[in-house]
Amino acid sequence: VDAGHRDVPVVAIVGRSGSGKTTLLERLIPVLRRRGRKVAVAKHSHHAFDLDPSGKDSRRLAEAGADVVAFSSPEQLVVMQRASAAITLDEVIARHLGKVDIVLVEGYRELPIPKIEVLADGAAPLCSRDTLLGVVGMDSPGLPVPRFDPADVEGLAEFLDRVLSVRRA
Amino acid sequence: VDAGHRDVPVVAIVGRSGSGKTTLLERLIPVLRRRGRKVAVAKHSHHAFDLDPSGKDSRRLAEAGADVVAFSSPEQLVVMQRASAAITLDEVIARHLGKVDIVLVEGYRELPIPKIEVLADGAAPLCSRDTLLGVVGMDSPGLPVPRFDPADVEGLAEFLDRVLSVRRA
Repeated sequence: VDAGHRDVPVVAIVGRSGSGKTTLLERLIPVLRRRGRKVAVAKHSHHAFDLDPSGKDSRRLAEAGADVVAFSSPEQLVVMQRASAAITLDEVIARHLGKVDIVLVEGYRELPIPKIEVLADGAAPLCSRDTLLGVVGMDSPGLPVPRFDPADVEGLAEFLDRVLSVRRA
Repeated sequence: VDAGHRDVPVVAIVGRSGSGKTTLLERLIPVLRRRGRKVAVAKHSHHAFDLDPSGKDSRRLAEAGADVVAFSSPEQLVVMQRASAAITLDEVIARHLGKVDIVLVEGYRELPIPKIEVLADGAAPLCSRDTLLGVVGMDSPGLPVPRFDPADVEGLAEFLDRVLSVRRA
């Protein structure tokens, strides 16, 4: 995984559990869209999730053993695929997320992707310094990377735009 | 749309609302899998659906405006994509369902795909005769196509295997 060799720039949002990664994504996505970017999100979880616990058709068909179930409506397409082996982020991006301007990743903390870390007050970053692009939090104890206030989502979006355009050049 | 020009055979399961299309699919899929087939299902709905009404992350990220949200776990991959225009069945198959042995379609009744129709007792088929491969029901009033008892899912699977192998040759 190397952002420099992709067609689409990839940035991971990392942080301890409960640090507010999803909330940051939820606020960052509309700002990036207002700036004209098409945005994809890839989220990884180590445990199985249950998108549709209600016994609806999607679940019935997946449980019947379909390898892939695709639901389409005029407004959305949902594709559910059983994984025989772990699916890598590269595969997810190559197959499903190629046609956007930026892929924001939540999870996959171990991969050498450029990262923005959401920090609790005074906490040291979890991720290794060589992939850390910046931090979001109230203070950044001695870190040589830009810090963004949690309220300054515009500033973070502008920074991401700038960094990504350099990386793509 | 023409099954003869696809890499993967496509058969639609059609029938009136409440005729038991999803139940038939639910029973047919494991039989086809036991016969060694990889199976995909494509389902179309004219109204928006709500896979995840619980305020979970998937919904939060989609509502924030992400064009695509991909969730992966060791067991499955779920990709949710906003549609700007209606997505055709051809596009769904080409992008997402190519690597299976058969695509079973529910909905898309208007497309000229080979069809199996689930019939209520004594009812005439909904779909045009020239794409009708067979019917499932307790009787088939004067139809020149094979009829399968709703309980005979093995028979239907064997028939599909045979028809599809002819069409692929």
